[in-house]
Amino acid sequence: MALSDTLDAPADTQPRFLRALAHETLDRPPIWFMRQAGRSLPEYRQLRTRAQDFISFCHDPEMAAEATLQPMRRFPFDAAIVFADILLIPGALGQRVWFEAGEGPRLGELPSIESMADQVEASTERLSAIGETIKRVRAALEPERALIGFAGAPWTVATYMIEGRGSDRVRARTMAFAEPEKLDALIAVLVDATVRYLAMQVKAGAQALQLFESWAELLPEDVFERIVTRPHAAIVKGLRDLGIETPIIGFPRGAGSLVEEYAAGAGVQGVGLDVQASAAIGRRLQKSVTIQGALDPLLLRAGGEALDRRVDQLLEQWGGGPYIFNLGHGVIPDTPIEHIARVAHRVTGR
Amino acid sequence: MALSDTLDAPADTQPRFLRALAHETLDRPPIWFMRQAGRSLPEYRQLRTRAQDFISFCHDPEMAAEATLQPMRRFPFDAAIVFADILLIPGALGQRVWFEAGEGPRLGELPSIESMADQVEASTERLSAIGETIKRVRAALEPERALIGFAGAPWTVATYMIEGRGSDRVRARTMAFAEPEKLDALIAVLVDATVRYLAMQVKAGAQALQLFESWAELLPEDVFERIVTRPHAAIVKGLRDLGIETPIIGFPRGAGSLVEEYAAGAGVQGVGLDVQASAAIGRRLQKSVTIQGALDPLLLRAGGEALDRRVDQLLEQWGGGPYIFNLGHGVIPDTPIEHIARVAHRVTGR
Repeated sequence: MALSDTLDAPADTQPRFLRALAHETLDRPPIWFMRQAGRSLPEYRQLRTRAQDFISFCHDPEMAAEATLQPMRRFPFDAAIVFADILLIPGALGQRVWFEAGEGPRLGELPSIESMADQVEASTERLSAIGETIKRVRAALEPERALIGFAGAPWTVATYMIEGRGSDRVRARTMAFAEPEKLDALIAVLVDATVRYLAMQVKAGAQALQLFESWAELLPEDVFERIVTRPHAAIVKGLRDLGIETPIIGFPRGAGSLVEEYAAGAGVQGVGLDVQASAAIGRRLQKSVTIQGALDPLLLRAGGEALDRRVDQLLEQWGGGPYIFNLGHGVIPDTPIEHIARVAHRVTGR
Repeated sequence: MALSDTLDAPADTQPRFLRALAHETLDRPPIWFMRQAGRSLPEYRQLRTRAQDFISFCHDPEMAAEATLQPMRRFPFDAAIVFADILLIPGALGQRVWFEAGEGPRLGELPSIESMADQVEASTERLSAIGETIKRVRAALEPERALIGFAGAPWTVATYMIEGRGSDRVRARTMAFAEPEKLDALIAVLVDATVRYLAMQVKAGAQALQLFESWAELLPEDVFERIVTRPHAAIVKGLRDLGIETPIIGFPRGAGSLVEEYAAGAGVQGVGLDVQASAAIGRRLQKSVTIQGALDPLLLRAGGEALDRRVDQLLEQWGGGPYIFNLGHGVIPDTPIEHIARVAHRVTGR
């Protein structure tokens, strides 16, 4: 026992989450949930009343740090993710962004590509509050729990910037065919801004990064390669060129079978899987990357024995390789807290 | 020439569409488009004004046959598909169905499973007008062009019956977890009604059948197997048990990588692919089934050189195996007719 403790010591000092992301297979996978902070927690809803609007809330390090830490007090999660929003970058590039109560994001007119390109350096300055949030969280969080920084991936962010709201993305997808140069130019600006924003998060204390590509669905293979895989690869390269070796998880939600081409081309260390991902595709991916996912948030909300069975099934089918337990999408706001605690206990024993 | 004509004669008398569906690789693939009839054609919009509502239109063999034939006069398509709607079965089972102008389908309260189970036999009687449409179309259509019958697949039809409208299907997907027995019972009734309805269509002259599973997306692997693949397999078996050997195309739109498990388990002869399907997955499927798809309707609408390039790419990547050229979803109503004609010409040379 003492001997084995000694031998394992170097690895054991690393947070479990980071060991899994370093492609280690562990005795049990680390766990965190996308949207683990936020409206599913009563203490968040209470906290949120103190800020006038959601964007201001994200830019307030005291409140954002508190929101980040709330789920870490309640649940035995292995990682926290900084409380922020994927639409902070468009705001920092000069496009107006606000949230209509109960309706989600709204964005003002799309600025010219040129004007946004001129704002890239300044945009990271304007997001410095998120760095401050990360510093505070890292200082408060136990060392065995990792802190994740994140950004929206360029295509997903571009869809909101083009459409002005959440939507079926018909205008944005049409642009991919009808005005490819314009879309490529917008994505190039976003790649640049995202590299700087993520580098700032790492400098502030983020130990891993996630790129949220929420709208990877409905894209033909050639378009997917052009506007999803390549921009992700460019972000990874941009960070590596700055000497940043922080592990990166890409989450191309809805990528279907293209997730394999994504994993081969994006250069990420972890790949998030959505609820649809099959056992077989996950196991193929585990040979080269760590996988993360893919419990259905609707099942988490529904609860019951079906939830327990599915948790066991995911642990069984993927636990033999590098795996981070998570949902296949974010926690739904009216999810009972007991269901979250129940799954976290089932995975961690705590 | 004369000799080869003689040798090829038996195969050549078969419509090109049916030869492809019999797993033949042809000199050029047959082509048809989902939603080739309907609002993209001015003559349809004119015809439609003669019926009070959309459901009545579908139940009028004269108008429905005319709508079916309209695109066949304009374009060199190799197959017609009977003009009808996937929500005719719920109507025939006793659930009220109507269409709100510009908003899509609306459905009344879901009848009890028991009452619908009692209506299964009568439901096929109530859909006899669709058989009459098929007879008229088959009589009018050139012998080298095939006629396809169709139905909505049980899960997709169930989502509308449960939600009462087009939606994000959260209630229906939640039912798959929280009330599986109720959902399974509803699907069983729909399997039964669909087998009878499709058998009637074959008797009337349909030479191939398509099952439209429009909402195969967002389902975990185990749920997909239970509510998509198995019900499709039950429909195929139900038809074969009636001595009906008509080839069947299943179109699980949004199935992602699960389309391979679907193709292995559903027992269908053709598999429709959505816009996302990769070249590689299509080629793997072609070993066992004929594939159909997967041009993006947004690209068809956008037109231009990007459209020509993608058509050529699809022909190149899949034309070397059993393949039916089609879209990855239906024609969008405001698609320019010239774009449809241009693609049909590029594929057929006519």
